[in-house]
Amino acid sequence: MTRQSTVDQKHPTHNAKRFISKERAESKLDIDQLNIFLENGPEEAQLTQDLIEEIVHDPVLKTNTDHYDISKDQEREITARRIARMALYMEHDVKTKQKQFHGDYIKTLEKQGSPLLSNGDFSIFDRRMSLTSNMDPGLGTRIGVHLGLFGNCIRGNGTDEQIHYWLQEKGALFLKGIYGCFAMTELGHGSNVAQLQTTATYDAVSDTFKINTPDLLATKWWIGGAAHSATHTTCYARLIVNGKDYGVKTFVVPLREEKTFTLLPGVMIGDIGAKMGRDGIDNGWIQFKNVVIPREFMLQRFTKVIPGSPPQVKTQPLLDQISGYSALLSGRVNMVMDSFRFGSKFAIIATRYAVGRQQFGTAKNETQLIDYPLHQYRVLPQLAFCYLVSPTAHKLMATYIQTLSELHQAGADKKKLFAVTDKLKDLFIDSASLKATNTWLVAKLIDELRQTCGGHGYSSYNGFGKGYNDWVVQCTWEGDNNILSLSSAKSIVKKFVDISKGKKTTITTDSLRYLTPEFIGKSLSKDLTFKFDNLGDYTDIWAVVTVRLIHHVVELISKGTKMDSLSKTLVQISKFHALHSMLLTYQEKLEESKSLVTDAYTRKYLEKLYVLFSLFFIDQNLGEFLLLNVLTSEQMSQIIQPRLLELLPEIRKECIGLTDAFKFPDAMINAPIGYYDGDIYNNYFNEVTNNNRPEPDGPGKPPYFSYLTNMLGREDFQARLGDTFSAETLDSLIK
Amino acid sequence: MTRQSTVDQKHPTHNAKRFISKERAESKLDIDQLNIFLENGPEEAQLTQDLIEEIVHDPVLKTNTDHYDISKDQEREITARRIARMALYMEHDVKTKQKQFHGDYIKTLEKQGSPLLSNGDFSIFDRRMSLTSNMDPGLGTRIGVHLGLFGNCIRGNGTDEQIHYWLQEKGALFLKGIYGCFAMTELGHGSNVAQLQTTATYDAVSDTFKINTPDLLATKWWIGGAAHSATHTTCYARLIVNGKDYGVKTFVVPLREEKTFTLLPGVMIGDIGAKMGRDGIDNGWIQFKNVVIPREFMLQRFTKVIPGSPPQVKTQPLLDQISGYSALLSGRVNMVMDSFRFGSKFAIIATRYAVGRQQFGTAKNETQLIDYPLHQYRVLPQLAFCYLVSPTAHKLMATYIQTLSELHQAGADKKKLFAVTDKLKDLFIDSASLKATNTWLVAKLIDELRQTCGGHGYSSYNGFGKGYNDWVVQCTWEGDNNILSLSSAKSIVKKFVDISKGKKTTITTDSLRYLTPEFIGKSLSKDLTFKFDNLGDYTDIWAVVTVRLIHHVVELISKGTKMDSLSKTLVQISKFHALHSMLLTYQEKLEESKSLVTDAYTRKYLEKLYVLFSLFFIDQNLGEFLLLNVLTSEQMSQIIQPRLLELLPEIRKECIGLTDAFKFPDAMINAPIGYYDGDIYNNYFNEVTNNNRPEPDGPGKPPYFSYLTNMLGREDFQARLGDTFSAETLDSLIK
Repeated sequence: MTRQSTVDQKHPTHNAKRFISKERAESKLDIDQLNIFLENGPEEAQLTQDLIEEIVHDPVLKTNTDHYDISKDQEREITARRIARMALYMEHDVKTKQKQFHGDYIKTLEKQGSPLLSNGDFSIFDRRMSLTSNMDPGLGTRIGVHLGLFGNCIRGNGTDEQIHYWLQEKGALFLKGIYGCFAMTELGHGSNVAQLQTTATYDAVSDTFKINTPDLLATKWWIGGAAHSATHTTCYARLIVNGKDYGVKTFVVPLREEKTFTLLPGVMIGDIGAKMGRDGIDNGWIQFKNVVIPREFMLQRFTKVIPGSPPQVKTQPLLDQISGYSALLSGRVNMVMDSFRFGSKFAIIATRYAVGRQQFGTAKNETQLIDYPLHQYRVLPQLAFCYLVSPTAHKLMATYIQTLSELHQAGADKKKLFAVTDKLKDLFIDSASLKATNTWLVAKLIDELRQTCGGHGYSSYNGFGKGYNDWVVQCTWEGDNNILSLSSAKSIVKKFVDISKGKKTTITTDSLRYLTPEFIGKSLSKDLTFKFDNLGDYTDIWAVVTVRLIHHVVELISKGTKMDSLSKTLVQISKFHALHSMLLTYQEKLEESKSLVTDAYTRKYLEKLYVLFSLFFIDQNLGEFLLLNVLTSEQMSQIIQPRLLELLPEIRKECIGLTDAFKFPDAMINAPIGYYDGDIYNNYFNEVTNNNRPEPDGPGKPPYFSYLTNMLGREDFQARLGDTFSAETLDSLIK
Repeated sequence: MTRQSTVDQKHPTHNAKRFISKERAESKLDIDQLNIFLENGPEEAQLTQDLIEEIVHDPVLKTNTDHYDISKDQEREITARRIARMALYMEHDVKTKQKQFHGDYIKTLEKQGSPLLSNGDFSIFDRRMSLTSNMDPGLGTRIGVHLGLFGNCIRGNGTDEQIHYWLQEKGALFLKGIYGCFAMTELGHGSNVAQLQTTATYDAVSDTFKINTPDLLATKWWIGGAAHSATHTTCYARLIVNGKDYGVKTFVVPLREEKTFTLLPGVMIGDIGAKMGRDGIDNGWIQFKNVVIPREFMLQRFTKVIPGSPPQVKTQPLLDQISGYSALLSGRVNMVMDSFRFGSKFAIIATRYAVGRQQFGTAKNETQLIDYPLHQYRVLPQLAFCYLVSPTAHKLMATYIQTLSELHQAGADKKKLFAVTDKLKDLFIDSASLKATNTWLVAKLIDELRQTCGGHGYSSYNGFGKGYNDWVVQCTWEGDNNILSLSSAKSIVKKFVDISKGKKTTITTDSLRYLTPEFIGKSLSKDLTFKFDNLGDYTDIWAVVTVRLIHHVVELISKGTKMDSLSKTLVQISKFHALHSMLLTYQEKLEESKSLVTDAYTRKYLEKLYVLFSLFFIDQNLGEFLLLNVLTSEQMSQIIQPRLLELLPEIRKECIGLTDAFKFPDAMINAPIGYYDGDIYNNYFNEVTNNNRPEPDGPGKPPYFSYLTNMLGREDFQARLGDTFSAETLDSLIK
């Protein structure tokens, strides 16, 4: 049995709230200006606030602490309800974006020949999704697979007619008619897409493809939505025509009848079952056995099969590949935005807890955790990280939408296509490096901040556990972080080599601005030294260390070291590239936002966060800075470390204002030790007791008491053996 | 609906098993000798194998992959069944250890005046527990709270009579009669034990204590076993006599009636509910309202209340504190052993997967993951870590048992007590530093190795998710890792200062052998340089970097820097101390085990692992080595990094032999991608499909299909609004 609390919570002897109130009373920050900075301008800030209000008040979408107690099956059901709810907002958001409320706008879009919608037309809905996902990441993925992967695969590989048919006429874009999944990964192949084994064999007589799973390893695996929800999939399969293998192409394959969810002939699907996190997603496996689809279901923007005898295959290899992978770009770009929002949530929780929690010090006036230098070092750089990632997340999103739109507008214009291809390649570098670096950093952030909350961080009700489990898959999916880092670093190194050799090299992004002969020359000069007397130095030092690390790698390769054995350093190059790019973007944003963040004190704090971020990561990567002689030991111990130590207490002074500026309501934080009023103990105790009601008198709810009572009250071992081992019994046996 | 697989698994085109067979065929290692090295000698190795056999064949204890699909309530029930099962083995193990099978030995021990059992008498059962916990960590904790915390609290703080009464007469040691929990932590205070707020007020008239919870923050929190299982607790409460507060002491408080599990008067208990992991533990909160216990239930080895008017309190402050905390020692020592066993499990899984999984390379012959240098760098040092932690874990356990036994044998002999106190203090340093460092390293190990298994690492059925969630609480409980590291480092720094000042300082452990004036002098000499031409250098360099880091801290303090702001460096000192101590112990073990590991090739590999461990952590802590001039940039890039890169492929050659040597059967690994036969895909696919049976035709198992079908088949938005927004309708409204 258990019993209710009898402690009088109305008259506490300890009032945790007073700490956070004091911080707020003393803060001189302009919270609204900070929020506008974080949310990319006043209009977007307002939109975010409006959407958050709607989400946390929607009875289906709102998420409470009971969410931490549900089973996989319950979570999947809740997610399905929420998908249906999001569908209601979807049409509304598209109309709002287009300011098209008269006439049946959606019906118009569904008509053949109506204009194709672009990613930009979904910006309101995408933001709604991003904010909803911050409370329920599994929901975000489950819709994201349909819109982002299935949808963008069709956009990237289909002809305009195919895009229109599947996404608008069939209704997929409006979460209507069909529900898609994305069958790329197989049991035996993930990152190595070119070696996928599923086949799509063209049959000239019937003018159809037969989709087949030739082996267990070719089983489509991890397919989000496959187990229960998907009616269709975009399937990655080897195109076989006349016995010749043309490599991996994409095909739309119907899986289930839309009304009864009965599997179609030849489609074998199973449930993947339990995962480390995101159990709301119904991941499944798929096998195909002679599944027939019409030729027209192959996505044919860049590769076409032309019937005839013999049938012919026409392909545009470069564009085929670039555009083919663009389905994954959307996910990567979104994960940088997720890094901002998801990281912020935990930075808020840990900071508020650190302000309200006391430990050691004098008995009457114990020290607040946040006043310990070690605690500041553990918490505040993570808060700075959340600020730093925001401008990058917004900029990357804008670049992505712009570049994809240029790709589509280019149509068949070769010149335009090649121009946009350069941009796409740089976007691949940036998105890969930023996705990998930031998803890793947020995984560390959640882990580190959970530890700063001690045991209470381990309670499910404070969100860290589920948060971590839901998060870390971001380091693996849609491009494994190590593979992405290697690929991005290799592209950067290649550009560096080309530039060093004087080859003409196109650079379309600021983040690679360090790749000019002038900057490289300057960076490699032995006399170079940083005084940190201007803000730019905190960015530039990262450009220099990146250049020197690239140069180091290039030197080793030229001396015969194999690229592969330098992989660890290549991963480091990608990280440094990302950190530099974040600092640069933030610095630009600070400059641009002079008219928005007008309060000098507030601006100063935005600068301090920038400096903290740079110094913290220098300290964390000290080895490379010393090894490459970017800093001397003396600079490190006389400039970097003292500045870092000085900066922490300054930021600490405004830490509550800085977290309030994210403007996340409690319902989005969903962790009682991190609620706004700072009443950590009452909030936490109440959530725990609400979720775990008292049991009746005597052996109560758990049916297993008898195991314990039987054990505790058991007979002696000897008695259980019938006393066979007692001296008398033994004696009697051989008398 | 879902359907069964139709792929022919009997005739696979891909045979993953051949990779692992090839490795085994080519291995020249002596697996048995390695196992004897890892298990601390041939007798212990045999015992471990016997116990593992028993555990994995016990129908109640054996754990399958369906364990990853259970709910919190199910897990708690299974754990309770398993506790009862372990109780059956308990008596048997004690008898085996004592070779006492004649007469009713346990009954004899329960009799008043029988000899007190020591921790050493439970060594077989403890090993059984340690191995069982490797499959089910929650079970380990749930019994560990009773035996290790409740039991050791009584041992550490009780008189011999009290120890005998509670542990032997009442039966607690044999999991009989009563079940204990350990009520130390409160909602508002964890690490700061001295400020706990629960009160135990002495009433002279009735000669009893009243236990009270004065405030919500004084609610006992996280108490393992409290929610459902405990009949008694050792309660940490402030001793109040005649209005005076004597600080925190320990009291045995009955909580529930043993037969009905009804809560006793004044005891309020609730369930803490869901946690990040270890849901098998029924953690609860406890509040006391005027709970009366007889004076004799206070544990009075070092503090006594003597009735009279006025009543008196006699205390032995130093011993009180040292011995009082010794309850936590057992847990810390066990966590180092857990680090060895738990880490090994994941090292096996990731290594076998890396051998069987192929990625990129040529289409016909893709490269095995383990052949990529980056993958080797990610996996093999983790394997080396498991080898390195083993001798330390065994040595620490032996020192702990020996020291505690000396403490008890000392009785009231002051001289002996002070001698053992010195040993206890050093044991606090070592156990704190090793517990913190190793639990952190294993958390990183699980996380890093999960990532090396890509998406398949995220499947629950491969164990990483639950493994990580169950593990990471070890970084927080029984001494938060940061607090432990600080406390251990501060003690080391204090010894260093004393030695520098020429004060006499007692050092009782090899791990602190670097604290001699000679070694300190040598370490600080500018001429010191390492050539790495003998194995000892790989340990010594860590002693030198530790001394220099301590010296650096002492210098800063002497210049006025506050100790607190050096916390980050202090944590680093504790880590370096632990790494040095592990290398030293391993090196000694290598020396000692010459007669056991006789095969030269095998010994060579044990040496290689040692070198790899040292080099890997130098590389990981490069900044400090350069900053403190222990290594130059040239040594780093010309010796350390090249040796590291050379060593990896050598270890890779024997990686399967090195993992086989742990001799963990599949049932203990419980992760199909890590099973012995290396048939990763079939094993994994079979476990997933066994745990997720096909659903019936049409909308099957999940009850939520209607949400999806209703959404997909919904009317147009316009139609839903009754066409009110159509141009005609609108026109008609204002005609």
